[in-house]
Amino acid sequence: MLGVCYYPEHWPESMWAQDAQEMAALGLKYVRIGEFAWSRIESAPGVFHFEWLDRAIATLADAGLSVIMCTPTATPPKWLIDLYPDILPVDVKTGTTRGFGSRRHYDFSSENFFREAMRITEVLGQRYGEHPAICGWQTDNELACHDTTHSYSANAKAAFQQWCQQHYGNIDNLNQAWGNVFWSMEYQNFQQIELPYLAVTETNPSHNLAYRRFSSDQVIRFHDEMIAILRRYAPNRFITHNFIPMSDTQTDNAALAKQLDFVSYDNYPLGRTDLFFANAATPNFKRYMRTGHPDYASYAFDQSRGISHGPFWIMEQQPGPVNWARHNPRPEPGMVRLWSWQAFAHGAATVCFFRWRQVPFAQEQMHAGLKRTDNSPATAYAEIQQLKQELAKLPALPETPVVAEVAIVTETVAQWVTEIERQGDSYNQQQVEFAYYSALRKLGITVDFIGQDADLSAYKLIIAPCLPIVSKAFVDRCARSNAALVFGPRSGAKTPDLTLAPNLGPGLLQQLIPVKVLSVETTRPDCHDALHFADKTYESARWREELSEHADLMVVARYHDNTPAIVQAQHNYYIGTLTCDTFLYDFFAALAKQYGITTVQLAEDLRLVRRGDLTFIFNYGATAATLNLPATTQFVVGSNQINPFDVVIYR
Amino acid sequence: MLGVCYYPEHWPESMWAQDAQEMAALGLKYVRIGEFAWSRIESAPGVFHFEWLDRAIATLADAGLSVIMCTPTATPPKWLIDLYPDILPVDVKTGTTRGFGSRRHYDFSSENFFREAMRITEVLGQRYGEHPAICGWQTDNELACHDTTHSYSANAKAAFQQWCQQHYGNIDNLNQAWGNVFWSMEYQNFQQIELPYLAVTETNPSHNLAYRRFSSDQVIRFHDEMIAILRRYAPNRFITHNFIPMSDTQTDNAALAKQLDFVSYDNYPLGRTDLFFANAATPNFKRYMRTGHPDYASYAFDQSRGISHGPFWIMEQQPGPVNWARHNPRPEPGMVRLWSWQAFAHGAATVCFFRWRQVPFAQEQMHAGLKRTDNSPATAYAEIQQLKQELAKLPALPETPVVAEVAIVTETVAQWVTEIERQGDSYNQQQVEFAYYSALRKLGITVDFIGQDADLSAYKLIIAPCLPIVSKAFVDRCARSNAALVFGPRSGAKTPDLTLAPNLGPGLLQQLIPVKVLSVETTRPDCHDALHFADKTYESARWREELSEHADLMVVARYHDNTPAIVQAQHNYYIGTLTCDTFLYDFFAALAKQYGITTVQLAEDLRLVRRGDLTFIFNYGATAATLNLPATTQFVVGSNQINPFDVVIYR
Amino acid sequence: MLGVCYYPEHWPESMWAQDAQEMAALGLKYVRIGEFAWSRIESAPGVFHFEWLDRAIATLADAGLSVIMCTPTATPPKWLIDLYPDILPVDVKTGTTRGFGSRRHYDFSSENFFREAMRITEVLGQRYGEHPAICGWQTDNELACHDTTHSYSANAKAAFQQWCQQHYGNIDNLNQAWGNVFWSMEYQNFQQIELPYLAVTETNPSHNLAYRRFSSDQVIRFHDEMIAILRRYAPNRFITHNFIPMSDTQTDNAALAKQLDFVSYDNYPLGRTDLFFANAATPNFKRYMRTGHPDYASYAFDQSRGISHGPFWIMEQQPGPVNWARHNPRPEPGMVRLWSWQAFAHGAATVCFFRWRQVPFAQEQMHAGLKRTDNSPATAYAEIQQLKQELAKLPALPETPVVAEVAIVTETVAQWVTEIERQGDSYNQQQVEFAYYSALRKLGITVDFIGQDADLSAYKLIIAPCLPIVSKAFVDRCARSNAALVFGPRSGAKTPDLTLAPNLGPGLLQQLIPVKVLSVETTRPDCHDALHFADKTYESARWREELSEHADLMVVARYHDNTPAIVQAQHNYYIGTLTCDTFLYDFFAALAKQYGITTVQLAEDLRLVRRGDLTFIFNYGATAATLNLPATTQFVVGSNQINPFDVVIYR
Repeated sequence: MLGVCYYPEHWPESMWAQDAQEMAALGLKYVRIGEFAWSRIESAPGVFHFEWLDRAIATLADAGLSVIMCTPTATPPKWLIDLYPDILPVDVKTGTTRGFGSRRHYDFSSENFFREAMRITEVLGQRYGEHPAICGWQTDNELACHDTTHSYSANAKAAFQQWCQQHYGNIDNLNQAWGNVFWSMEYQNFQQIELPYLAVTETNPSHNLAYRRFSSDQVIRFHDEMIAILRRYAPNRFITHNFIPMSDTQTDNAALAKQLDFVSYDNYPLGRTDLFFANAATPNFKRYMRTGHPDYASYAFDQSRGISHGPFWIMEQQPGPVNWARHNPRPEPGMVRLWSWQAFAHGAATVCFFRWRQVPFAQEQMHAGLKRTDNSPATAYAEIQQLKQELAKLPALPETPVVAEVAIVTETVAQWVTEIERQGDSYNQQQVEFAYYSALRKLGITVDFIGQDADLSAYKLIIAPCLPIVSKAFVDRCARSNAALVFGPRSGAKTPDLTLAPNLGPGLLQQLIPVKVLSVETTRPDCHDALHFADKTYESARWREELSEHADLMVVARYHDNTPAIVQAQHNYYIGTLTCDTFLYDFFAALAKQYGITTVQLAEDLRLVRRGDLTFIFNYGATAATLNLPATTQFVVGSNQINPFDVVIYR
Repeated sequence: MLGVCYYPEHWPESMWAQDAQEMAALGLKYVRIGEFAWSRIESAPGVFHFEWLDRAIATLADAGLSVIMCTPTATPPKWLIDLYPDILPVDVKTGTTRGFGSRRHYDFSSENFFREAMRITEVLGQRYGEHPAICGWQTDNELACHDTTHSYSANAKAAFQQWCQQHYGNIDNLNQAWGNVFWSMEYQNFQQIELPYLAVTETNPSHNLAYRRFSSDQVIRFHDEMIAILRRYAPNRFITHNFIPMSDTQTDNAALAKQLDFVSYDNYPLGRTDLFFANAATPNFKRYMRTGHPDYASYAFDQSRGISHGPFWIMEQQPGPVNWARHNPRPEPGMVRLWSWQAFAHGAATVCFFRWRQVPFAQEQMHAGLKRTDNSPATAYAEIQQLKQELAKLPALPETPVVAEVAIVTETVAQWVTEIERQGDSYNQQQVEFAYYSALRKLGITVDFIGQDADLSAYKLIIAPCLPIVSKAFVDRCARSNAALVFGPRSGAKTPDLTLAPNLGPGLLQQLIPVKVLSVETTRPDCHDALHFADKTYESARWREELSEHADLMVVARYHDNTPAIVQAQHNYYIGTLTCDTFLYDFFAALAKQYGITTVQLAEDLRLVRRGDLTFIFNYGATAATLNLPATTQFVVGSNQINPFDVVIYR
Repeated sequence: MLGVCYYPEHWPESMWAQDAQEMAALGLKYVRIGEFAWSRIESAPGVFHFEWLDRAIATLADAGLSVIMCTPTATPPKWLIDLYPDILPVDVKTGTTRGFGSRRHYDFSSENFFREAMRITEVLGQRYGEHPAICGWQTDNELACHDTTHSYSANAKAAFQQWCQQHYGNIDNLNQAWGNVFWSMEYQNFQQIELPYLAVTETNPSHNLAYRRFSSDQVIRFHDEMIAILRRYAPNRFITHNFIPMSDTQTDNAALAKQLDFVSYDNYPLGRTDLFFANAATPNFKRYMRTGHPDYASYAFDQSRGISHGPFWIMEQQPGPVNWARHNPRPEPGMVRLWSWQAFAHGAATVCFFRWRQVPFAQEQMHAGLKRTDNSPATAYAEIQQLKQELAKLPALPETPVVAEVAIVTETVAQWVTEIERQGDSYNQQQVEFAYYSALRKLGITVDFIGQDADLSAYKLIIAPCLPIVSKAFVDRCARSNAALVFGPRSGAKTPDLTLAPNLGPGLLQQLIPVKVLSVETTRPDCHDALHFADKTYESARWREELSEHADLMVVARYHDNTPAIVQAQHNYYIGTLTCDTFLYDFFAALAKQYGITTVQLAEDLRLVRRGDLTFIFNYGATAATLNLPATTQFVVGSNQINPFDVVIYR
């Protein structure tokens, strides 16, 4: 299904009816509204204005559209901030209060805001919870965007002290767990605990990790309470939230998704590519400047699927150039349709476009919509018309599952550990994980993202690119699994409090593979060494562990000095180093062959994925390709010839 | 005429008389004094010391010199700051108070400082207004230098709220004009308005532009009041101000110049080249490291002429290495003379050198003067002796006008719009405008800088490299003009409140050329595409607009994908993209030919300009050149052979 | 002798005895303890716990080890901070208080901390001063680390005002000395004086230099008082302090060392190389990534020897990868031994390793030790076993002096001047000095670092790479010296208050060589010019002085425009420019030949140094080399063939 984001409060009421009719004609089913409308709903404390919203909903419903209502808590109005100035968060890097004037200007530890946010949620729930035109709710908007999970406020400090008390019981436990003896950092009571910022030099990693966990818990507490209120007033409506990329939330994403019916994702491949690949060399970057990296969008799709109870949604799909990246290119013709199909192929139920019409004012006036500010249709409009027709051939799509033989084990805490403990400036957990994922995708392998608590039985190959803290239960489940297991560097190296595993890295994973990490070195990214694997030479770079030798270990790859770099015990592998993309491709190709996982040889810019009985091929490149499919192939969309930026779907 | 900046308070009184005699002997007519002397004039509240200043003026007058007196308001003394701590400005990037200890430590919104600054102005006016040795006044010093136009202070906030009230009348107008509904940013009253800084993410562009206008108005209010006081006490004396580069004032420069008799400019070609071309590649940069870019100084001269009522002055001319750029090279031998001649050629009446003698202490001890700290003459001294002799041949110079057939339309608000709305990190309004200007100068074309309110009748070609906000009156005047009109990307795209033109870009300019900007993309500077023009291929880069096609439009240049990049309707041109220097040169060469504008073919480092019946040629290069002028040429300075760093003047 | 750093409070008491026995077996004689143990010694105000420390000392003593006790003042506990919040320092770049949570969170101007630090010193002195197992004391830890010398606190301001009063007597003297008239910066009384930070633009260099001197004095006041207390209670024990690199202390290192028995240095070649050579090109950097630059460690050794009364110590020797640089490589096999030998060769009496065992918690959990966290011996362990055996052959080493024919004159104030007065962004005093030093070391020349007050009679060649402020006494002593004297650019250019020398640079040095610096230019580092010397062409770069000509001057080298770059009068040389490493090598080779200084031709990665009758050769390279020593050579360690990362010692 398709949908769109709409802000009736931005437009004269005289335009609403035609907008609604055009939406319906374009094949859009869902319309998300109300997201930032707090100041229009409540213009002063307790002074409510629902008439316009009632009429907007009615107008949309009249056109046959289904409404997704939002809680407007991402944008508390000025009068609320003036009533309770402690709502404003404090910058952890500078100690400066982050003021009113944009959005997300609230501190998750402000009890005043917590109460007010739940009050407006309740008010909206009471009025619209059972409204027949409203099919579901979105909570807040892009929680944690703009680095708003962490705050250096007095409220945050007090709440963190309480969290520590609940977590550690008494102060000796905390001192012991964090190793506070190290620099006489021992606390005598919980009221002495500071936030781990703005000290003379780096603060205790354990202290930092505790603060990250606390901050994540605060977001989830806020979110879960909001969901609970909506559940009370809005029976039989779905509740979802529109996630930003998982690495940007600074929140345990799986926990954040737990109480939702399904996860939504806001998909901006070009803006994200501009930021994520900012350091890429010119030809590498330019190649995907107007398409996004072929694996970036699907990386987010597969992550979203991994934490969603039902098929995920795209709640916001980039429809043209945006305004917020460092550079904001125009998508190549066809990419809006391609990204949409790619979302469906990776398991999406619905794709909503952001936004119906480009608004001529305020911060996002340069952000494209489906229609231009003069109400003419923008480029993406025709692509959606085509999409509508193509979708009509595939009525049952949302129910068909995506099935993967390969899983990547991931979790937010791994990101936190690597951000807290840099050790080498060029280690980036997201880029490490993405490199593994991208190598698998180039081989045509479908990938699930799972947590440590997942059922492992479905997989032939399970990969943990970076999992510094492992649980005993997970390791036990790994031990019982028949899958090939691959662990990247840092895996198992840490205890839950971010101290070193007492038996050296990979800690509890030594139950699976009897290797010890004797030392770790990090190097400048331009200073790599050779990595020898299967008669070829690759690169070892940035992070390099010294591995012990052991009679039960087979050495799979060696460093330039002939010491072990990758070792194997039965079907378990430990990789001691970061490396290059070509190594990952060849290594996983070899494993796939060995463990019976199907791979596909495709041109560099093509990607293939299967959903149910459908196979999708996407061409991210500027040149057409011939697919060499058998003559009997039953094409749903396209043919044996795939054009630039085009999609082929067949059974 | 020539002059010099002098600080008698820096030197023993015993040196003054000889200094004055040497100045006169060097051909210097004007001496600027008193600029930073507040603490010596008023050592405590109301405790004045004029005797030394009286004697200094008398000493200079005795040598036949004419004195320019300054208001010392750029350096309020410590006792004044301690009396009124709210004088100190607040950093808009950090919220930190900017302390005492250097200069310009005042907030234009401090009413205490406003009153005190006018008080000391009045005191000086009363004492020296009619002093026979004083020919004119300089207000303050380099207003806005060191980013002092904007302040995050409580005073600035209160004054901005008042400004908004006066500007918008009621709060609904403001909310409407700024589009505050967008993120529930609506205000209920003017007292709620915040300054547009230190918010969670970017603040509203309209809000920002209003604050820029307000801040500019505050500078002008301060300046105009000071001028009014001086006018009262100093009849028949000129009043001027020494401007820094126009892009650094964050003030409407034309408005700032309005009440002055003429504009002065502080000309530091090497320091400015170091900063403006900081990202230039080694050979490009080194080429002009010790000369300044051939077009940089004249760019400022032509801008100064554009906003000056009478012939502009150079109030400070770099005499050797300075101390404040990132790197501070020594001028090539002859450059101080060359820059001075260049100023005269572009319309200057007087060139004053900064400063008589290098001072051995404080912040500028490494900044050269005409004399060294040991009182020996520095390198520039001999160049000025030569200049004096050459000038003696040209008594009438100041009255001769500079006449241009080509104008660049510019205004400070265009810079503000592009700074507020980045959209692409590599768009820089000054560099865009400079590239256009430099292409014209390489063709030997004289350029006027004009505002939207200027008379257009004198020009054959009028170019607006970047003019996002255009007035109806300007467009009407363009429509009546016979000149060729060229508009760069972003032109006309915005309303005066920095929202998008409702009929799409170029907004009101569609009256001149029926093109619509359908979308805008920005790209990484290293990722450019082809631009096809007149059978050659150039570069389209950084900013690229999608242009509509129209029956009345001729396509002048096309993008790599064959869509229109530059369009023409009659003699009006719209350029949808940023491009490369070679394109601009070839494009303007073609236009000049078509519209009958004389161009000159010169070696790359030569520049030619005409003033009255004089032609000036400057050699910025390290190699001599032969000019091939007719045998009948009447040389005033130099000959047919131009040496490195030399000047030739002929009739 | 060898030693180790140990933290008994980090480990179960049950491990202590075995640790001590293993230390003794490894040949370690000294154990440093107590460094960060304040919270374990005093858990609340006046609540002391000495029993554990008594037992730890006893355990070590029982194994025959000798204990170095530390004052734990680098880590004041939380209860102390809460009692006296003014202990916390304030960041001079932001004005933000630097909080608790790491170490060195104290302000040298907090009288509360001063009193408390001396109290705990006295308490420890009383208890352990005459303890027979304790051979000496370390004061605090790495004073000034993490930029803690400077503070923007109210305490620092008040103390600085007092310092100024004592220094200048009356405010007119101060205004005169600093040239405060320049921008009306004159003070009327000492209470008005601000700290030289957070002003609108750069503050007065004289003001800055005074604040640097004051801050240095505050560190020394603190340190000297601590030493005085220890002297009172700990007779016949040595007192030392573990220095970080001299350029990082922001303190007059010679003055800081004055009351100590000897200087200790914390030697981390890899971490320091990562930071000091951060801008080096890939091959240059990678070459020494795992060895450290061949001259970096010895640079620190020779500096330490220069300010130490007796043979210096290495108090902390890097034993493997550390955690605090941007990248943290593993030392090549053998480097821990090599660095240790190199320290002895350059004059060290003792090398202590940091630390006995890697601790699994807190900030330094990724910092290697001699043993791993699981108590297995790390790589360095075996290298120390070898070292122990080799040392056994050289019992008398500590008493043998290092004798140098060449001295570099250095002082902290030179660094301050160049940091305060940038003039060119690419001038770095440490890198300038290091380049001179490294050129000498490549020639096999032993170098002393001396101050201006040193006896010059022992040297044949005395070099001041950067000495902006020279004393009359020093110049007089130079005049009486028979050594060749070489002064780098900026030498003698400034008065003690950081104003320009009245007779131009090199100021008082004109007594030695009649040259005047007519002007100074600085250039972008990529824009160098030719430097002509002895028929070859080198580079002049970054800093270039215009030198006067004089009948008594011989021109040694010339700039690209043929003007003098290096001049000579008798045996005195003045260098007007920064240049390249090859020039420095050739220039000093020529001088060495002329003045009878022995040089040695070695492969690029070899270094040679002599101590007494021993010659040491170190191979920093990855390839073996043959030394071609005579057959009669008496080898103590190694042979005529030197392996990669190996050491040869012979008589």
